[in-house]
Amino acid sequence: MIKYSNGKSYSPKQIKKSDDKKTVSLKRHLSSANRGMDLEGDINSSNEYYKEHDLCLITKRPTPINVVKVDYSKGAIITNAYFEKQSTTDYNGVYKGRYIDFEAKQTKSKTSFPLANISKHQIAHLKHVLEHGGIAFFIIEFVTKDEVYLLDAKYVIEFYENGNRKSIPYETFLSVGHKIKRGYAPRLDYLPIVEKIYVKN
Amino acid sequence: MIKYSNGKSYSPKQIKKSDDKKTVSLKRHLSSANRGMDLEGDINSSNEYYKEHDLCLITKRPTPINVVKVDYSKGAIITNAYFEKQSTTDYNGVYKGRYIDFEAKQTKSKTSFPLANISKHQIAHLKHVLEHGGIAFFIIEFVTKDEVYLLDAKYVIEFYENGNRKSIPYETFLSVGHKIKRGYAPRLDYLPIVEKIYVKN
Repeated sequence: MIKYSNGKSYSPKQIKKSDDKKTVSLKRHLSSANRGMDLEGDINSSNEYYKEHDLCLITKRPTPINVVKVDYSKGAIITNAYFEKQSTTDYNGVYKGRYIDFEAKQTKSKTSFPLANISKHQIAHLKHVLEHGGIAFFIIEFVTKDEVYLLDAKYVIEFYENGNRKSIPYETFLSVGHKIKRGYAPRLDYLPIVEKIYVKN
Repeated sequence: MIKYSNGKSYSPKQIKKSDDKKTVSLKRHLSSANRGMDLEGDINSSNEYYKEHDLCLITKRPTPINVVKVDYSKGAIITNAYFEKQSTTDYNGVYKGRYIDFEAKQTKSKTSFPLANISKHQIAHLKHVLEHGGIAFFIIEFVTKDEVYLLDAKYVIEFYENGNRKSIPYETFLSVGHKIKRGYAPRLDYLPIVEKIYVKN
């Protein structure tokens, strides 16, 4: 909890339960320093919003960790473990019965999204999702532009497998991507895009 | 690797790559001591089989772990962490575009499946899955009977919320459950049941 000079205090819980405009702007102010650094947080809170409003159910896969040693004398404390590479994607879930699967990434580049931080395993996973009729995409943030796009996985797979390029040009996002609207709740409203491009048509 | 008196050796890798009948029966022999103790392994290998044969894509969610301390001096070794309770289910994925979500549990009881090891959060999660048109079920093994059943989540939710009972009688599995065939590959062939009760009709 943060105490302010006016004697009022701020707590995240307070914000969650209140629609008060002042509280909202306070929260935005507090988080503006991290603008562009918290794509994951924005997606998680949007998913929470969608769940609470019965719009869809998307969950984040836990980070895979390889546990080497557990100390049971203190009630199962893990004392030796290491992070494993995610072989699938960060998010999946269900919308109107359909399977949804996506990965979220950020780039500081202004001109293109580098493919270096997408693994072969993730591309293989997304190809399988598409094969089985699932909805697969990326949510990619151009941090310095403060712009977030939804891009169907097939384009990323194409660029990844083409081999001539090591990045996807920004122009591709403008032409075949879909800009996601930022807001307060949900913070990244990507579901209307999913509805429009995958479900409605 | 295990060395045998006939000079031959056994390695799990060898089994995976070979269809040789002897190797197969050796594996079955070796695992028979653990019969009924490895439901998770059976499901994982069945999912692997389904993936390799392009039948569906079901992945296991990693165990959620809360990381307290990481030692970066040795290259990101986790030195303090603890297991968190799974608030969703163990498995989800896609079959013919449809979202699938399930939890696997075992019981040593011969007469009923106790609801004690299913959490409130898991029930809430499965209700959301059903609300959004997803396919949700349990795979439950009666270890002492060596029988495995697929039971639609709605029955488990009903029993869980009814409150009068703390377990689901074995008879319920016989009447509304679906017995899963055991085999070599896949070891637990639950997909034809999913096809029959959720997709075909």
